[in-house]
Amino acid sequence: MTYELFYWPGLPGRGECVRLALEEAGVEYIDYARLPEEKGGGVSGVTRILGAEAGTRPSFAVPVLRDGSLVIGQTPAILQYLGDRLGLAPREPSDRLWCHQIQLTLGDFMDEIHDTHHPLGASLYYADQKPEARKRAEVFREVRLPKLLGWLERVAVASGSHWLVGDRVGYADLTLFQCVEGLKYAFPKAARRALAEAPAVVTLAARVAERPNIAAYLVSDRRLAFNEDGLFRHYPELDGEA
Amino acid sequence: MTYELFYWPGLPGRGECVRLALEEAGVEYIDYARLPEEKGGGVSGVTRILGAEAGTRPSFAVPVLRDGSLVIGQTPAILQYLGDRLGLAPREPSDRLWCHQIQLTLGDFMDEIHDTHHPLGASLYYADQKPEARKRAEVFREVRLPKLLGWLERVAVASGSHWLVGDRVGYADLTLFQCVEGLKYAFPKAARRALAEAPAVVTLAARVAERPNIAAYLVSDRRLAFNEDGLFRHYPELDGEA
Repeated sequence: MTYELFYWPGLPGRGECVRLALEEAGVEYIDYARLPEEKGGGVSGVTRILGAEAGTRPSFAVPVLRDGSLVIGQTPAILQYLGDRLGLAPREPSDRLWCHQIQLTLGDFMDEIHDTHHPLGASLYYADQKPEARKRAEVFREVRLPKLLGWLERVAVASGSHWLVGDRVGYADLTLFQCVEGLKYAFPKAARRALAEAPAVVTLAARVAERPNIAAYLVSDRRLAFNEDGLFRHYPELDGEA
Repeated sequence: MTYELFYWPGLPGRGECVRLALEEAGVEYIDYARLPEEKGGGVSGVTRILGAEAGTRPSFAVPVLRDGSLVIGQTPAILQYLGDRLGLAPREPSDRLWCHQIQLTLGDFMDEIHDTHHPLGASLYYADQKPEARKRAEVFREVRLPKLLGWLERVAVASGSHWLVGDRVGYADLTLFQCVEGLKYAFPKAARRALAEAPAVVTLAARVAERPNIAAYLVSDRRLAFNEDGLFRHYPELDGEA
């Protein structure tokens, strides 16, 4: 069965965490975000999977993964499901829980990054909340970013392995990579400072980029560039002083 | 083995989702938030479990559950773990995933409620972000609350049962109850309007309150009242017009 991924077209967003898992595993998948509207892709794919095709178990938002008759929403739940099937999750129950806990915290991290440019709500434009975004981004740069990266560094060091959990790459490693890349794009100055204090995180992200399937994906036209429609946005006014 | 719960003292917060599961199941647990500092409770319990006692798998934040040598952070991960052990999770894999997906979306719902009073960041006081909180709360009341409750209503109706997933109460039902109670406390006017459009959600929350163990818990001194230190805060200026 071919996996089907539904997500907004034109931005990596949270959907990219799912794509990285599918790409690392080298499995076939249909990425509706990259199909034209007339083939059921683009925004119409999102509308369909959240509406008419949702049945009795509608997801609140995308990304949504469909595997045959099973439809799953929420990035951490999708990755927990795929992790087992694609060899990207630990086997031991306590390791599985720990991997999931890291993923959930990375998800919170991404929420905080999103809210730097949308502190008043995702239903308003950035242009309508620029002064508030400046304030929230300052708190993020000064307080939250060092705290979150400090925690991640502690976890990466304490794992005692090349990866966050156990001796093989897992879905949380892939999301860590995406977070590091996104931070470097969105906050080049603040990220440089913060990442200098998190060498184990930087090394782990580099290891992900060197995985053969990931390396091939990153230079392919399937990989979407970061941009100002997504979760990681580069607005120089939110990046603080050099 | 007695479960041990670590959370901030004096506020229900996200820790209450874990408490409700433990109370519904009627199991013994040590609630460090309710123990005095000299017995390792209160803030010192939080500091300890996130620091000195965290070992190689530190949680980023509380709630944290300890079960023997296993330490778990992140509310959805804790509930997934407890759900299996306390009979509060479905048995069938696709039902388990769906239950977890609902819990994750309720967690996002609670994040949005929190951010109505802390749009610029949790490290600042409410008094330092009142104008921004008014704007964010308006977006929440007008856009997000109807959307989130509308989704939850659709899910409750589509389940075709007394509960969100399957024919027995689960951890997501308990969290739904807490969300409804918290909304009524924090936004009495806006919640009344929004809940009038979500009768299945209201009925389901009432069913949770009638569970014998939950009913006994709610009138016990173990149940913490909502207050303005917690996630659900009642600030009349954020509740809009009648």
